[in-house]
Amino acid sequence: MLYTEIPTLRPVTPLLDGIDHPEQLRLLERSQLEKLADELRQFILYCAGQSGGHFAANLGVIELTVALHYCFNTPRDRLIWDVGHQAYPHKALTGRREQLTTIRSKNGLAAFPAREESEFDTFGVGHSSTAISAGLGMALARHYKKDPCEVIAVIGDGAMTAGMAFEAMNDAVAHQADMIVVLNDNDMSISGSTGGFAKHLAALWERGESINVSEDGEAYVQPHPEWIYNSRSHSSATNAADNLFKAIGFDYFGPFDGHDVEQLVQVFDALKKRKGPRLVHIYTVKGKGFAPAEADQIKYHAIAKLNAKASTKKLPKYSDIFGQWLCDEAAQDDRLLAITPAMCEGSGMVQFAQQYPERFFDVAIAEQHAVTLAAGMACEGLKPVVAIYSTFLQRGYDQLIHDVALQNLDVTFGIDRAGLVGEDGPTHAGAYDYAYMRTIPNLVIMAPKDENECRQMLHTAYLYKGPAAVRYPRGTGVGVEIQSQLTELQIGRAEIVEVLNEQYDEYISVLAFGSRVQPAIDAARAFAKQHEVAVRVVNMRYVKPLDEQLISHITDNTALFVTVEEHAVMGGAGSAVNEYLAKAQIVKPILNLGLADEFMHQASHEQMLHQAGLDAKGIETSLQTVWQNLLNSVSS
Amino acid sequence: MLYTEIPTLRPVTPLLDGIDHPEQLRLLERSQLEKLADELRQFILYCAGQSGGHFAANLGVIELTVALHYCFNTPRDRLIWDVGHQAYPHKALTGRREQLTTIRSKNGLAAFPAREESEFDTFGVGHSSTAISAGLGMALARHYKKDPCEVIAVIGDGAMTAGMAFEAMNDAVAHQADMIVVLNDNDMSISGSTGGFAKHLAALWERGESINVSEDGEAYVQPHPEWIYNSRSHSSATNAADNLFKAIGFDYFGPFDGHDVEQLVQVFDALKKRKGPRLVHIYTVKGKGFAPAEADQIKYHAIAKLNAKASTKKLPKYSDIFGQWLCDEAAQDDRLLAITPAMCEGSGMVQFAQQYPERFFDVAIAEQHAVTLAAGMACEGLKPVVAIYSTFLQRGYDQLIHDVALQNLDVTFGIDRAGLVGEDGPTHAGAYDYAYMRTIPNLVIMAPKDENECRQMLHTAYLYKGPAAVRYPRGTGVGVEIQSQLTELQIGRAEIVEVLNEQYDEYISVLAFGSRVQPAIDAARAFAKQHEVAVRVVNMRYVKPLDEQLISHITDNTALFVTVEEHAVMGGAGSAVNEYLAKAQIVKPILNLGLADEFMHQASHEQMLHQAGLDAKGIETSLQTVWQNLLNSVSS
Repeated sequence: MLYTEIPTLRPVTPLLDGIDHPEQLRLLERSQLEKLADELRQFILYCAGQSGGHFAANLGVIELTVALHYCFNTPRDRLIWDVGHQAYPHKALTGRREQLTTIRSKNGLAAFPAREESEFDTFGVGHSSTAISAGLGMALARHYKKDPCEVIAVIGDGAMTAGMAFEAMNDAVAHQADMIVVLNDNDMSISGSTGGFAKHLAALWERGESINVSEDGEAYVQPHPEWIYNSRSHSSATNAADNLFKAIGFDYFGPFDGHDVEQLVQVFDALKKRKGPRLVHIYTVKGKGFAPAEADQIKYHAIAKLNAKASTKKLPKYSDIFGQWLCDEAAQDDRLLAITPAMCEGSGMVQFAQQYPERFFDVAIAEQHAVTLAAGMACEGLKPVVAIYSTFLQRGYDQLIHDVALQNLDVTFGIDRAGLVGEDGPTHAGAYDYAYMRTIPNLVIMAPKDENECRQMLHTAYLYKGPAAVRYPRGTGVGVEIQSQLTELQIGRAEIVEVLNEQYDEYISVLAFGSRVQPAIDAARAFAKQHEVAVRVVNMRYVKPLDEQLISHITDNTALFVTVEEHAVMGGAGSAVNEYLAKAQIVKPILNLGLADEFMHQASHEQMLHQAGLDAKGIETSLQTVWQNLLNSVSS
Repeated sequence: MLYTEIPTLRPVTPLLDGIDHPEQLRLLERSQLEKLADELRQFILYCAGQSGGHFAANLGVIELTVALHYCFNTPRDRLIWDVGHQAYPHKALTGRREQLTTIRSKNGLAAFPAREESEFDTFGVGHSSTAISAGLGMALARHYKKDPCEVIAVIGDGAMTAGMAFEAMNDAVAHQADMIVVLNDNDMSISGSTGGFAKHLAALWERGESINVSEDGEAYVQPHPEWIYNSRSHSSATNAADNLFKAIGFDYFGPFDGHDVEQLVQVFDALKKRKGPRLVHIYTVKGKGFAPAEADQIKYHAIAKLNAKASTKKLPKYSDIFGQWLCDEAAQDDRLLAITPAMCEGSGMVQFAQQYPERFFDVAIAEQHAVTLAAGMACEGLKPVVAIYSTFLQRGYDQLIHDVALQNLDVTFGIDRAGLVGEDGPTHAGAYDYAYMRTIPNLVIMAPKDENECRQMLHTAYLYKGPAAVRYPRGTGVGVEIQSQLTELQIGRAEIVEVLNEQYDEYISVLAFGSRVQPAIDAARAFAKQHEVAVRVVNMRYVKPLDEQLISHITDNTALFVTVEEHAVMGGAGSAVNEYLAKAQIVKPILNLGLADEFMHQASHEQMLHQAGLDAKGIETSLQTVWQNLLNSVSS
């Protein structure tokens, strides 16, 4: 069935309602599976409307999910979903149907498979391209324990472009591991797929035949019927007759129609007869069965709740600020090139990509390559800008050190989603970038207090003749005016943004970084009203180089330093301040506020900040506690 | 010529002596190139004997290097050597012949290509698998600037297994970039090559034919003569007829004999007639032309200087300590599996690999995969141990956070070459691991003061039911007795190892980490003799969790805290101490000793430690300066 609207009332799903464990699914007749898939699709549509969240990828794997749990003995057989944003149907079939509307909310189901949530979630995911490695580890472990089981890793064509997947395939063949890789080819990353691999998958389709497997496990070739041959675009196919998976030593089967649940069941059942590394290539449609999503797969990658309140004040997102700056800077400097690892939309680069197609490089899900590609461009005197999420830069960490910073190359990093990220939860938290970056020589690291400063910092980082990063949060700015003029900031200069209770001699000096400047000001104001001490708030701007001069300058009348950041306390910006105080032999009390040393479960961004004590109220409370302790210790 | 001894006198090399710039090489007749290659081989043998260093890989690329500089207009054409340990012949032909005996020594030539050393070194390398990305960046930049040139990336078959190379190939095809990749296939990483990719390269050889290119750039197929067909082993070849490079969209040429310099010249010249991404597959012999190296390629990966003094005291290397522990632990727990990303020998795992082949996993150069493979094994209740160099764990950083720590999986990391590494220089420095690891929740991080403690810490990390890392330096232990008994240490407990001048009330408390404990003791002893203050030295053992109880306990009579570590001060172990003091509201002077915020050029490990002020003398000097400052500030 092709649906056109997201239901607001729970659909009637009698078959689905009877499945609280895949054991019950496995009691169904094969002929009932199509009906079950249809019910599941309606149910997913309904739930996604209630909860918001990832959408089109889930609709694409309905039949696959039904077939996998039908054919394999989960959870004893190990099923690993790469990335995991397509695991809603899996969650629905494995005992979590009634909680599915709570997905991505505080105390609800996690956005991705999570080991602590269910025994069916064999591996926690979120970042792409880990499933073959994890599955191989499981297969080798079970082989070693002489307790073998089937291991199935489901991975998208987008995720396959990340080198890690290739590393894992290479190794699976080395060990002739008994595992099945299901390549869920929908010709998409979150953006469209790109590169030689995508062309190759199109070429495999273009052959017009598939390699099938008979009931007794023998491979045979079968021509595609015309309708299926024409069901996907393969105009950009490479013209080679070679098969990459066979070349590297996998048994290859497919390509198959990934929405034909009965054929999938036949294939998976037959494949159990074979051993070693096997790859099943299926073609699915992202958004399958929901007409608007099939028509616009990028837009429907994720959706908002149906009843989400439109925000009254329409503030610009930081990613939009980045995108606008990119266009403006490019207009005045033709040395600017921009790189994204498959995050064109999320990073706010759609307009730039349209306006400057010859200067826009979507390198596929390939963070390592993205960083070193930029280094190569910088060697030729151009000025590459890499747009990347904080959590994904972890994938390009060695390249940042070894290829960019060590050679002091002129690369600008726009680091998005830094800090807590809300509903996506701990896998996507950008909580470690200050720590992992500031230990690297040559790198300049900035964090803006608001959207206008973000724009000016990006300009400053761009003009800086070396590696420089601007790190900004998920979500919207604070509502300040944005100056169209681009103005370079002085490197390593902070600014005092608030001074309160100046009548007192002694100060609390609050050194705030990035997104925490405004809440720090609010907290300081509330605090100052109730205490007989002066308070100043500094917008530190730079994590590296730190404005040592300013800190030194305000030291004499400071009774207590406070640092505040949306980042782990361990190794963070406050830690940089501690180091400076130690170096300068400034012996003063200091309070480091930031994220505790734990992974935080998902909730809204605001809920998480509150929980971490990093909203204005939390900062104020910490100020009060520590100030009171200090007064007590002096008086005692 | 096949040589059997390393010459101790400089060989006579009239052709080579006339080449101070490749322009002069390009004036030679094609027929003279074989003679030049022979001279260059003799010269490299001589120089390597004088300087020590990488060896067999250099002998393997003599003909290739001559052919590349002969055919291409370097430095205008961009030549990038992946890894770069094979760049000695390149350095010899590009104006650095007379300095080649200084390679890897202080103020000498760098171990790897380095941009600041020569305009011919277009990209700084050291870590593997970056060359295609960097070369693609250059090619795209030159295309964009409408100033095209030839770009040639030379990459080994071992380096090709790292996913980053695959990411770059995928992207090169997306952009139809004009670049040549030379696949230097010697069937080796530093260890033997492993995996599906190696089998595939053997399969390409097994076809018994190569794809050649005519003078006007047309491809044609040519059978291999029998002698060349038999010149490499291809017994483990996959039996597929598919070509991986063609599948992904590269033009493929080869395989060719990489020691036939005239054929190489013909091929490279002809390939200039073609555009787009082209791959030339050549087969070379690591150690070519030097009989002992051809016979034992692993042993001759690198050699010592001919006149190197044998150390009088034969101390065990930390890698040997690791290897022995691994065998001992494995003997008493059959859940132990060990993983290396192609560093079996360097990590001290040869004995383990022989003794427990079914529990040993060399996953090829694939750090990302290595870490997540371990995570998958841990999910099945086994206890994987990952042996990895500090600098290479940077490649698996995201996997450490996202796949291991976030799921709190029971994986043990033996982190070798942590701190300064001497002759390999800044690309291989393990100077950032405390910073990038301690910000991660759930991870336990230890650093041993000596080889016995290293052994016991590995045992402790192994028993710990979660992710734990032991980080140890390059080189040998300090000479303590090694207890064969494995004894678990208490997690998070430090020990006071030295107390001096106990007659005084006030203490300097030196908190020392890992390799710096012994020098800190020596420094403290020297210092205590000259000053009227007590000194205690603490072997901190744990960077995380820190022994907060002990620090708190010694605070009252501490006048000055000092932290010492072989790691960057920024974000390091000292920084962890600062954070605790801040949290506990302990307001005392603290001195953080460690590496400055700069990349250090190569020298011997001892020279580098001296330069960094981290040997006993340097630590003593810092103590004196800061203590004097403190006395002055109190008295003023």
